[in-house]
Amino acid sequence: MRYAVIGTGAIGGFYGAKLQRSGVEVHFLLHKDYTHVQRHGLKIYSKDGDFCLPAVHAHASPATIPVCDVVLIALKTTQNNLLKDLLPPWVADQGILLTLQNGLGIEPQLAQLVESDRVILGGLCFICSHRGDPGTIHHQDYGSLTIGAYGDGYQPQGVTPLLETMARHWRQAGVETFLAPDLGYARWKKLLWNVPFNGLSVVLSATTTEMMATPPTRALARDLMEEVQRAAASQGVAIPTADLEQMLHSTATMAPYVTSMKRDYDRNLPLELEAILGYPLAVARGKGVALPRMTMLHQLLQHLDRQNRRHGSGTPAAPG
Amino acid sequence: MRYAVIGTGAIGGFYGAKLQRSGVEVHFLLHKDYTHVQRHGLKIYSKDGDFCLPAVHAHASPATIPVCDVVLIALKTTQNNLLKDLLPPWVADQGILLTLQNGLGIEPQLAQLVESDRVILGGLCFICSHRGDPGTIHHQDYGSLTIGAYGDGYQPQGVTPLLETMARHWRQAGVETFLAPDLGYARWKKLLWNVPFNGLSVVLSATTTEMMATPPTRALARDLMEEVQRAAASQGVAIPTADLEQMLHSTATMAPYVTSMKRDYDRNLPLELEAILGYPLAVARGKGVALPRMTMLHQLLQHLDRQNRRHGSGTPAAPG
Repeated sequence: MRYAVIGTGAIGGFYGAKLQRSGVEVHFLLHKDYTHVQRHGLKIYSKDGDFCLPAVHAHASPATIPVCDVVLIALKTTQNNLLKDLLPPWVADQGILLTLQNGLGIEPQLAQLVESDRVILGGLCFICSHRGDPGTIHHQDYGSLTIGAYGDGYQPQGVTPLLETMARHWRQAGVETFLAPDLGYARWKKLLWNVPFNGLSVVLSATTTEMMATPPTRALARDLMEEVQRAAASQGVAIPTADLEQMLHSTATMAPYVTSMKRDYDRNLPLELEAILGYPLAVARGKGVALPRMTMLHQLLQHLDRQNRRHGSGTPAAPG
Repeated sequence: MRYAVIGTGAIGGFYGAKLQRSGVEVHFLLHKDYTHVQRHGLKIYSKDGDFCLPAVHAHASPATIPVCDVVLIALKTTQNNLLKDLLPPWVADQGILLTLQNGLGIEPQLAQLVESDRVILGGLCFICSHRGDPGTIHHQDYGSLTIGAYGDGYQPQGVTPLLETMARHWRQAGVETFLAPDLGYARWKKLLWNVPFNGLSVVLSATTTEMMATPPTRALARDLMEEVQRAAASQGVAIPTADLEQMLHSTATMAPYVTSMKRDYDRNLPLELEAILGYPLAVARGKGVALPRMTMLHQLLQHLDRQNRRHGSGTPAAPG
């Protein structure tokens, strides 16, 4: 099977490099790091052991990518407007799109961009990683992947043979892989973390450890989680309260972490507000559920995002 | 009548200086500006015309202040723990304490500190002013004073002859003065502005104009005002919705303003969170009213306040 990676950053670069190291043919679409990676390949500094890929299939444009069986989508969701020009026609008939993106509403968005015979899978990356110098990625912690698919009407589909096949590939690549019989539950559970900690890390300019160290902030993180839980319930997804407790506990005990949203903010990049807050709020509102804290967090972040991009230069809104 | 000013800052310095200029004997308690003001007096840069008081009664300690008829309390509420050492015994029998402080719960706090024959009045300063170099105060905009008193059980007292007398003094001093027949209403109405704009100015690092320019922030300011309105209602104080509209309109059209809480934050000083948020939240909670946005704002500000004072030096927690 031939893979492509759209968006060779902290996520796409890391997971794509793991695949290539295990012998899979991987094509990487790059933007500003293209020349560097074309010459020098990729370098992964990982808590599981550093490794180099001195030669990779680097592409500056989708036009040079051969037809691929699996396409990993690892752009920031704020760049998804670019996908209509990046995806067709080189995704194989009955090919697989595996999005590694955060948030909610991604799969419906992809479904509008490709032929109906393409298979859309959702991948959730539980990883702390970030980009370094051109062509380098730093993998600090975790690194698992959870894959699932929606059934008709975005209902739970269970674990299919295709998901089992995908899991084998990833496990061969040394990636701890889980299969989600209910992708909606998996996505909402991930929001349970992303909403409070990505959001508050920007508003408070704080690491996870700093947030968990202050009692009012810890209480607020929990309050926000309860709203995510209510939003999920409005979509028929039940998140047990034990999930909240476990997540608060693991966040309190993990190494200090600068969230991906905070890193984007510090680089004056657009924040993934729609996927993390806007879309979840909209679907809950559609069911008549009011979520004052999540709404307030969204409002605060919209303000900060605007001011931040006005003040900073940002890097161009393009992949890689 | 002899006046004293406890806390000769942007508020106490300004209003005290106006009184002295009109011929009233005023004694100023100072801390770090004492030596400068003792030598050079006070200088007020005002939109209504600059003026100097080359000689003032400056005091470094309450021990040297003669018995006064009216004591203006203009410390930050975060310094109110100092009042027990600053006030008695030089407030005249049946003397008046006029607090010019922001927020709720101030008058009950003062009542615990002085003999029951002292009269406690609440003063609300509608003013944009801030301290400059030692002994100088910058008065940018507005400058009125609203005075009222609580009746028994902190119920509305109406306008008394004493309030009329006070108003005459202030008007003679060139201060536009209003009398509040219902001090509770006046205090809650002031919170209607202070909660959203003081609070959000710190969280968003924004001026009033920047906050009003961003639609999500404008919506959030209004949402917060509605919660203040509900909190007030829980205490039997009705704030008409027209008050919200008028306040949003005047904030949108006034000159860009850095709130007093933001100025405190920028100087690494403690924020007046208890008087502006903690106490109002507690009394509403006592009536079973949940205020998620105000609670969240309080939580965010508690985090920022702690981090800010840890990082910065701050100026000593003492008057003047």
